Order: sequence, then structure tokens, then C-alpha cells
Amino acid sequence: MIGIILAGGSGTRFWPKSRELLPKQLIKIAGSKTMIQSTVERLLSTIPIKNIYVVTHEFHAYETCRQLEEFNFSPSNLIAEPIARNTAPALALASLFLKEKHFNEVLGVFPADHVIDDIGKFDQTLKEAEGTALKDYLVTLGVQPTRPETGYGYIKRGEAIEGCSNSFIVSEFVEKPNIEKAKTFLETKEYFWNCGIFFWKTSKILAEFKSHMPQTLKNIESAIPCLQKQKGPYPYLALNETGKDIYDSLEKESIDYGIMEKSNQVAVIAADMPWNDVGSWVALSDLEENDAEGNVLSKEVVAIDCKNSIIQGNDRLIAAVGTEDLIIVDTPDALLVCPKDKAQDVKKIVETLKEKGKPQAKFPSTVNKPWGSYTILEDSPGQLVKRLEVLPGAKLSLQMHNHRYEQWLVVRGTAEVQLEDKTFLLEKNQSTFIPQGSKHRLGNPGEEPLTIIEVQLGDKIDEDDIVRYKDDFGRENSK
Amino acid sequence: MIGIILAGGSGTRFWPKSRELLPKQLIKIAGSKTMIQSTVERLLSTIPIKNIYVVTHEFHAYETCRQLEEFNFSPSNLIAEPIARNTAPALALASLFLKEKHFNEVLGVFPADHVIDDIGKFDQTLKEAEGTALKDYLVTLGVQPTRPETGYGYIKRGEAIEGCSNSFIVSEFVEKPNIEKAKTFLETKEYFWNCGIFFWKTSKILAEFKSHMPQTLKNIESAIPCLQKQKGPYPYLALNETGKDIYDSLEKESIDYGIMEKSNQVAVIAADMPWNDVGSWVALSDLEENDAEGNVLSKEVVAIDCKNSIIQGNDRLIAAVGTEDLIIVDTPDALLVCPKDKAQDVKKIVETLKEKGKPQAKFPSTVNKPWGSYTILEDSPGQLVKRLEVLPGAKLSLQMHNHRYEQWLVVRGTAEVQLEDKTFLLEKNQSTFIPQGSKHRLGNPGEEPLTIIEVQLGDKIDEDDIVRYKDDFGRENSK
Repeated sequence: MIGIILAGGSGTRFWPKSRELLPKQLIKIAGSKTMIQSTVERLLSTIPIKNIYVVTHEFHAYETCRQLEEFNFSPSNLIAEPIARNTAPALALASLFLKEKHFNEVLGVFPADHVIDDIGKFDQTLKEAEGTALKDYLVTLGVQPTRPETGYGYIKRGEAIEGCSNSFIVSEFVEKPNIEKAKTFLETKEYFWNCGIFFWKTSKILAEFKSHMPQTLKNIESAIPCLQKQKGPYPYLALNETGKDIYDSLEKESIDYGIMEKSNQVAVIAADMPWNDVGSWVALSDLEENDAEGNVLSKEVVAIDCKNSIIQGNDRLIAAVGTEDLIIVDTPDALLVCPKDKAQDVKKIVETLKEKGKPQAKFPSTVNKPWGSYTILEDSPGQLVKRLEVLPGAKLSLQMHNHRYEQWLVVRGTAEVQLEDKTFLLEKNQSTFIPQGSKHRLGNPGEEPLTIIEVQLGDKIDEDDIVRYKDDFGRENSK
Repeated sequence: MIGIILAGGSGTRFWPKSRELLPKQLIKIAGSKTMIQSTVERLLSTIPIKNIYVVTHEFHAYETCRQLEEFNFSPSNLIAEPIARNTAPALALASLFLKEKHFNEVLGVFPADHVIDDIGKFDQTLKEAEGTALKDYLVTLGVQPTRPETGYGYIKRGEAIEGCSNSFIVSEFVEKPNIEKAKTFLETKEYFWNCGIFFWKTSKILAEFKSHMPQTLKNIESAIPCLQKQKGPYPYLALNETGKDIYDSLEKESIDYGIMEKSNQVAVIAADMPWNDVGSWVALSDLEENDAEGNVLSKEVVAIDCKNSIIQGNDRLIAAVGTEDLIIVDTPDALLVCPKDKAQDVKKIVETLKEKGKPQAKFPSTVNKPWGSYTILEDSPGQLVKRLEVLPGAKLSLQMHNHRYEQWLVVRGTAEVQLEDKTFLLEKNQSTFIPQGSKHRLGNPGEEPLTIIEVQLGDKIDEDDIVRYKDDFGRENSK
């Protein structure tokens, strides 16, 4: 089986921990790995890493490759979309890309941000699904409901498919039900949660695209030659300008509406396993250990007389007294407080922040970069204090700022500084400054990490105030 | 009239904005001035600044003088207690101190942390109270209740005192009532809120101390010669070691229990004016402007579908969705979340933090110092980043640290650095470092503010790791 991981996600539901540039799949929600790392790990017992592909937004391509490096994931298995067009175009792109190599094999499609704990049952289900898919069905995975959930779509099973274990013809896709319907669904045992995991042969899904979304298929076909390996440490695949124009022109469409509900060869594979779509902060109460009062608390939390609350922070002290069914999520640059029953409204916050042009909608407070990371320590008018961590051997781009000058103090390690035509070393405890308008470059020539405190001073302090001249990561023309 | 401002307060109820070192009276709760500044300002139309005295803990003496400098308050009018012993000892100390100069004058006693908005009525009440006090009554100010409040003590008025307007014999002091009693109290109009404002002649209160607390009076009498002007920019009065030992030995006692309830010459002056004891965060809903949904929000708050919530922060973004009757208070190093009906439990948090030895119980994140201030930007194991602001002409102490070394980067202004035997200037953009164990001193020789980024590195980073050799502010022997 070939695995396709759909790593869309816009970073809204888990704000402020997730951001536009660091959506849910790239953060740790529960456990010690990020969600996409867990997703890959879960597949590895069935699918070798060389057969696992990822489709994601190009904003997230670099970080995705970085996170999957520990599994020896090849960046050339990552296809970067220039813009999100929902699941149908993403799957058409991946299927066309895989057509030559894997035309008669089964593609398994997996969201990058779900939790499935029972790996034994998961493996078993994958095997059964592959068998059904090989018989030219579009197979969707249905999870046996354990509660009358009103937040998911359901699949009604029809007759069993002969010779395929746990497989049934899909008799109906059902939208999110009200609570009465959901209770009936639970009782009848004929309804399954629709969890967005699919299996089909490459040949089969391309044929279905041809029947139901012919124009989309044709357009994407013409974009395939535009996929190019990127420069830099992770040569992932992205569309060139021509390809981007084609992709931009596509209509948004989900695979559910575009194909699944139109095809007449759809099967559901019945899976009785613990599955969680990690749809909002409330999911933490199911996924993480609760204390005696039902709270899920992170380390620096002092909770007195609190019940069923989710309180997550970092190093900053959080004190809560008498809260009940409340969500508190604290990050270095933004705080969220919201009752559990309003967790779906967190996206309203993100919309509002975008309207107001607040950076907290887009940027995390620690931003991973190809060369390391930076963390904002204090952001006040005319003055920004950052801590930079530069990886051994890495260099930032040769750059220039029009509106600010910068002071650099080496806290640990050794820095190589290029300032206009001069290059010099700065040892621990030494500092220098970069006048406004001068070309400069910072690197770590050593084998130890380099920590710099950077103070930016100026009338306009903005990540966009950067002109790049040279870059080791192919970012010459980007901000 | 002579004014005595009692500026006790332990910084618990308004945590995390208040801290042990920065209690309620020294912070801005409502409006643009700190509570003690507002208290002094309110008195100035009746009492000249030279007749206003402050009794406070010596921890807060420096900051109190600093805050009252704008009113030309004389530091020699501030009496610092070495330890809090409740209101009776504080008032005995102040009364004995004022005995010689003001024996037959009226002392007005005012808490430093209440809000009284109607200055006209307040002035009028002070005049009436002075008249009654001159007739040798102990006068307590009673505020006409406007709601059946169960959080205050009450005073029941007896017969009117002839020739004294709005003055009545006190027939009874009543503890905090239950809601039924409070409703009756409100209806009868014979009960007043006991708000801790008193008036009496110096001679009268000393006579009462002699009758009801003779040993306390005698002990404090022997401590009076131990009051000494302190070195440094604010020569306030504090007890020497002998005086401290005497004060330490005193029992805690409130003026209400110690004197008022025992004396048979107690009057209440009936005041019909808006008064708020600012007893918890909930008070903000009364004191600050509410939005259409009853929220009190500070600047960087995005509130969606929130009702009757108090959300107060600084520069960090706070986003709240769907909260109701909730208190959220965010400071750079600590966050509080608590339903309004649990606001009194905030002190439980502070107790817990003290037990755990957390600095957030004691220190604010920006600590005012005689030489300026420091703000903690990032506190991580082995590494602390601070921003120091040094006032023009000011110098920190000549000091040494055993467990850490420090890096200094001049962000703006000019620094004078003494390092062992050498003294040199550091200009803007320059840096230096202070090896562990070396004597050093930082000063601002210029006329502009000096901003320094300090990075402390070491195995143990602790405010107590300081040996002071010389200090402009008399702190040679303190941490």
C-alpha cells in the first residue's frame, strides 16, 4: 500500500498553540511527538517510509520535512500546494503524480492530525481495506460510534460485500445529525463515523475523477510537469509559476462531495477502534491524563478547586481558582480563555485577529527557520528583543533592513559576522551592531549551538523589512 | 486636621498585579494614579501635604516615597514598620510620634487603598468629623449602605449627638451579616458600613490606648526614640535594631477590637457618599467603564461573546470567547483565571505560591529600584534575560555575584562600568561582561535614560546571590 498523508490545516482550532504558519499537524497536542510524526509512525508497520507521501501547503513544507527527518522521510515525497483547494484537488495532484509508479496499487489516504491508539486494530483494518480496494471499490473507513456524537458525519452501511471482511456497500452518507438522530444511529449499529480515511487503487480514483471532476483532473494533469524540486536542505516538490496559476484557478472541492457521494462503487470498512479527530481543545480531556478532578494541567499550573478544566501553558505561571469546564491555553505571546462548550468558536478569534492584522494569527512566538529558530522576548514600540538559536554550521541569509538597526550579543557559542565587505568572528560575551541599510549575515561556524540576543531598534520593526541577497535555503526572493 | 494614611496591605487580593513587594496601594487598580497617590490627592483639599503622614511596611517605604514625590511629600513624614502588627500598633506609633507637635489637633486616619469618588461630600464629611472629634469623641466614618452587602462590617447608630451634624453615638458594631440581616440593615437606615476611616484628637486616642492597651502603648513609647532617618534619596523614618525588637514583640491587634469596641465615647459620622474598599478584582466592575456586555477589558484584549467579565492584561494578546462572570488577569510572569464568585480565593493562590517558594508571590515582573527598574524578559534554567533601566545620574551598588556571570549590552544611553579596579564607559551598541566573583558597578553618568540588556548565566541564578560593597541608597547590608 502507498500512503498519502493530507497535511492541510489552517491553525485555527488549536490557536494559540497552532498558528497559520504552525498548524495542528506540526505541533504536539498529546504525547511527545507532533501529530504528523505520530501519523507517520502509525503507518510505518504497514507502509515503508519510501512509500509514504505528504501533501501540504508550501508554508509548511520545510517544517514538515524537518519533523519527518527522524523517519528518513525523503523530501521528494512531499508535494507542496501553493494554495489550499480542499481535499479533491490535493488527491488528484497526488494520484496523478503517483500514476506512473503505482498505477495498480492501493493508495491509503490519511489525515495528518488524528489520533488512533490501537495500532493492532489499525493495522488489521488497513489490511482488510486494501483487500476491498483491490476489488475496485472506493473504500472509506467507518469507525463504530461509542457515543451519540453530533459533531461528525455518519456513513450508513448497506449489504456486506462478499469475500471482503468487514466491508459493506455504503447506503448513505449522513451530515452531522442532531442528538436524537445520533442516539438512534448509535443503537442501530448500522451507522459509522466518517473519519476521512480512504483507500482506492490509483487507477480507480483517477477513473472516478475523470467521470465526476473531469475539468479539475485535466487542469491538474497539465500542472504535473510544473512540479520541481526546491533548492535548500529539503528538496521537496513545489509547482513553478505556471503550475501555481493552474492550481490557483481550481475550485475548492472536498473528495467527499466531489467523488465519494457521486460514485456508485463506494464501500465502508467497519473499524472498531479508538479514534479521535482532535477537533478542538476539548479533545485533550480524552487524550491526556486527567487529575482526580478531571483537569488536564501542564507543569507550571497552580489549580485550586478547579474541575474538568484544560489548562495548558509553558514556563509562565498560571494560577486558576474555582474554574469549571474551562479551557486556558497560554503561549508566550497570546492567551486563550474559553469555556469547553465554546471551543468551536476559537476560530472566530483567529478570524478577528486576521482582520486586525495581528501577527499572533500567523506567527508562533518561537519561529523555526532553516538555520535554527528565533523567539521573541519583548516586543515594545520601537524595540524588539529576540533570542536567536543558530544551528552548528548554519548561516542566515545575507540581508539588509531599511528601517531598523540591530544589536547582537553572543550568549553562547561563536558567531561569524559578515558586515558589508568585512567578515569577523564574535566570541561568547562579545557584541556588535548592524547599522540600518547595511548588508549583513550571521552564521555559526562552530560545532556547538550559537545563542544570540538580538535587539532591533527603529521606527518600523517588521519581519517584512528584509532584503535578501544570498541564502543557503533558496529564499532570495521571499520575505 | 492631620492625616495618617495606613498603607499596610500584603499584596494578596489583587495578585498577580499586586505582589508582596508591590501591594494594592502601590499599583493602579482604577484610573491613572496608584491607590496611595489617589488617597493623598483626595486629602489635599483639606490637609496640606506637610500634615499628611504615612505608616507602611519598610519593604514599601522607598516606593511609597517615590510615588508621593509628585505631591512634595516629605519622606520624614513616612514611618516604616519593620513588621505588620495590624492597625492598633501602627496608630499608637504614629500618635506617639505626633504627640509633641499635634497633641490637641484632630488626626484623620485613612486606608491607602479605598476609592471615594465624590470629593465634595468627602470634604464636607471631614469637616463634620473634625468638629465631633474636637468634642473628644472617637469618630468612625459610616457610609450609608446602597445594597445588602454581606462583605462588610456594620455600625448601628444610636442617638444623635447634639451640636454635631450627622453625628450619632455608636450603639453597636456588627460583624459581617448574612444576607437576610443585611437586607434588614438596609431598610432600617440605622446601619452604616464600617469603612476604617477614623477621627480623634491625638490626646484622646493616647488616653484610650492608656486605658485599653496600656502595655502596647508603653512598649511603643520606648520605641519612639529608635526612629531614625534612613540614608539614601528618601530619608524616611525607620526603627533601629532596638526599636525593631520592641515592635517585633508586639501582639497583632486591630484598632477596632483594641480600642473602638471598648471605648464608651465612640461616635459615627453618617456619610452618604460613594465608597468602595476595592476588596477584590470584582470591584473593577464598579470602578471602571463597562462595555455593552458588562465587560471591563484592557487594551490588548479580543473578547467575543463575553459577558460581565474582567479581563486585564498588558502588551500580551488575550483572547476570550464566551466567558461569563470570569476574571482574567495577565501579567508578564503570571496569569490568574477565576470566576467572579471565587475572587476572595485569590489569596489561596498566593499562600500556595509562598509554600512552593515561587518568586511570583513576592516580586513583580518589573521591579522598581532606587536606581531605576528591571524587567525580566526570559527566565530559563541557567539563563535569565533582563532589561535594566538606569535613571540619569544613578548608580547600582558596587556588588559581586558568587554563582553567575553577567553580560551587558547597551541598548540606549551611556553606561559607566566599574569592573574590579578599572572604570570605563560603554556607549550605545557596546557590551561587556562581568566574570563570576568580580566586583562590579553599573551607573548612568549621562542625562538620558540608560537601557541595558543583561544576560545572567550560571548554575544558580537568584536575586539573593549578591554581595554589596558600596551603595548610594544605604543597602550595603541587604540583599
